[in-house]
Amino acid sequence: MYSVTVRGHIMIAHSLRGDVFGPAQRLHGATYVVDVEFRRPELDAAGIVVDIGRATDVLEVVLAGLNYRNLDEDQSFAGRNTTTEFLARVIFDRIGSAIKRGDLGPGAGAIESMRVTLGESHIASAAFDGRL
Amino acid sequence: MYSVTVRGHIMIAHSLRGDVFGPAQRLHGATYVVDVEFRRPELDAAGIVVDIGRATDVLEVVLAGLNYRNLDEDQSFAGRNTTTEFLARVIFDRIGSAIKRGDLGPGAGAIESMRVTLGESHIASAAFDGRL
Amino acid sequence: MYSVTVRGHIMIAHSLRGDVFGPAQRLHGATYVVDVEFRRPELDAAGIVVDIGRATDVLEVVLAGLNYRNLDEDQSFAGRNTTTEFLARVIFDRIGSAIKRGDLGPGAGAIESMRVTLGESHIASAAFDGRL
Amino acid sequence: MYSVTVRGHIMIAHSLRGDVFGPAQRLHGATYVVDVEFRRPELDAAGIVVDIGRATDVLEVVLAGLNYRNLDEDQSFAGRNTTTEFLARVIFDRIGSAIKRGDLGPGAGAIESMRVTLGESHIASAAFDGRL
Amino acid sequence: MYSVTVRGHIMIAHSLRGDVFGPAQRLHGATYVVDVEFRRPELDAAGIVVDIGRATDVLEVVLAGLNYRNLDEDQSFAGRNTTTEFLARVIFDRIGSAIKRGDLGPGAGAIESMRVTLGESHIASAAFDGRL
Amino acid sequence: MYSVTVRGHIMIAHSLRGDVFGPAQRLHGATYVVDVEFRRPELDAAGIVVDIGRATDVLEVVLAGLNYRNLDEDQSFAGRNTTTEFLARVIFDRIGSAIKRGDLGPGAGAIESMRVTLGESHIASAAFDGRL
Repeated sequence: MYSVTVRGHIMIAHSLRGDVFGPAQRLHGATYVVDVEFRRPELDAAGIVVDIGRATDVLEVVLAGLNYRNLDEDQSFAGRNTTTEFLARVIFDRIGSAIKRGDLGPGAGAIESMRVTLGESHIASAAFDGRL
Repeated sequence: MYSVTVRGHIMIAHSLRGDVFGPAQRLHGATYVVDVEFRRPELDAAGIVVDIGRATDVLEVVLAGLNYRNLDEDQSFAGRNTTTEFLARVIFDRIGSAIKRGDLGPGAGAIESMRVTLGESHIASAAFDGRL
Repeated sequence: MYSVTVRGHIMIAHSLRGDVFGPAQRLHGATYVVDVEFRRPELDAAGIVVDIGRATDVLEVVLAGLNYRNLDEDQSFAGRNTTTEFLARVIFDRIGSAIKRGDLGPGAGAIESMRVTLGESHIASAAFDGRL
Repeated sequence: MYSVTVRGHIMIAHSLRGDVFGPAQRLHGATYVVDVEFRRPELDAAGIVVDIGRATDVLEVVLAGLNYRNLDEDQSFAGRNTTTEFLARVIFDRIGSAIKRGDLGPGAGAIESMRVTLGESHIASAAFDGRL
Repeated sequence: MYSVTVRGHIMIAHSLRGDVFGPAQRLHGATYVVDVEFRRPELDAAGIVVDIGRATDVLEVVLAGLNYRNLDEDQSFAGRNTTTEFLARVIFDRIGSAIKRGDLGPGAGAIESMRVTLGESHIASAAFDGRL
Repeated sequence: MYSVTVRGHIMIAHSLRGDVFGPAQRLHGATYVVDVEFRRPELDAAGIVVDIGRATDVLEVVLAGLNYRNLDEDQSFAGRNTTTEFLARVIFDRIGSAIKRGDLGPGAGAIESMRVTLGESHIASAAFDGRL
């Protein structure tokens, strides 16, 4: 299996509901360093998994929809805790949709699975890994 | 599959028996930066894989049993080489036991697998990855 | 000159006022990975710059005053932009006060200067470096 | 599953053919930080996945065949784009051959799979992961 | 002293003349991860060292003049070895010129010194540090 | 000022005497990732601060004198605590002596100062910085 991974980041505010979150129930924020790994069993004719420029552009577009925002006010997350692992899935799904729309080019249909990892600090991260 | 990873570290002394270890047969030591990845197929009602605070606490308790010690004098390792890969398994098993005891909370029973990675330097690491 | 550096982190929300900040004028947030470097010309009798355990504890206390908060609501920052460089200075001053109070032990009076660095992402950081 | 990962690096020049590569069609270069993960289900009698010294030596030998070169002039890559993902496979295959030749010792035959990751910058990497 | 650091990278080909360079006399290449630290004694009215967006843009423009090129063919380096330390100075000078031209805004004139660091691998880097 | 930094590492055992060290009074160990920064005001005729190959070799020789050892048994440290900051100075002095002996070549006499940094974990490091 071949893979290519590209990196971006977002800086957001949010709060989390539930005793389990302790002080993170207060409005606070995070920088998430976002790594997206694209995987496919064979390379295309150019010798690549995905056009890395387009992959970076698509990631930037997806991240721009979250960046510099208070996620508590984002209607698409109403009633949900925007935990790191939840956001990993959100980004996974949005990039998956972009691939289906052809934003990564026609060859990107051969991408079988992805892993989206969000580093929230030097000591904690979360990920969602799944098939497309 | 969702995952959450938390980090801690230990600083230990030990020696390794066998010609294959060359100068590492002498008493020496290591800092191991320890990453534990917890995985489960779905998030719980709060939107998390595991309570990250409790996960960090459990990791600290497990690491405290090894930290600032000469592992050559630890009876539980008698007759065994405390290689990086062996220690990854030891930590894996001890965290697995803590999960079974309920130390990570009742929801942690949904954790299906873990990966424990020990970074021993900027150029070498070892891991144990398995189901619970 | 000898130095010792310890690391902690905070996760905060804030907004920044001024056109120069573009989308960062919206309420958003950041993880700051905080490195504090303590410097002195000679080691003490024990062979150290500072008691690293106490230094870490003092850093945690200082960071707890900022962590998991919306800095826009912190009265001590009223009328100020809580930029990364500004916060580096805030943390510098608060640790400096702790040293003067003796929280790092009597020997810490020999610390001549410090550098506080806040990493806000994998591509940007800010610091304040000064004498005590 | 146990694993051990060792790191090396190469500094090469090359160019890539195809509009998808944009400015990377020009002769340019890269540092690739190369991580090789060796995996097997059980440790050997010494308690290791692989002799880490030998693994590092084998990696250095394989990398020396690529290092400080213009890959456009390497006949073994004629007609192929030496993309990061392609080179990950090349290194995978060459280390696999070294294992079969016995260069990592007789016990290395128990290695079932490997992952070769090439970091090309702080924001992009590629990998090949497969069975031996 | 306050500082802000931003990061970019370039991927270049070159060769180095002189026996001291050994195999690096051959045409090869490098990824340079470039950190530019801007320093000034006091913050401006907005509370910043420099507009981080503009600083990143200026860095990108300077790096674009070097990126994806064979530096052996760059007339501005004729007769010079484009070592990592030499390139750190080149980037320092070009950013210094951009500041003087006002590309970082009028307030950037208060920047007193900079440090440009080029990481060429996980084990080697070079820097130029100087006053403006 | 120009600088070049090279990296190596050691894995040692030791214990520290004094209540300030808490559990580190027990025999334990550490991996120290060692960065040595060499500085000089002007480059030599080849365009370098120091021959990076020779610098790496000299660092390896110095580190070999400490690596895979129990520092409590090293007579040259009798009566001293081998703290991270103390070891930074030891390595600084030994590389300084190597420079004076000419091990880095005749041009290395122009090196004016060095910084030796020992990373002991992902959250702590120590350094010695001084003139030659």
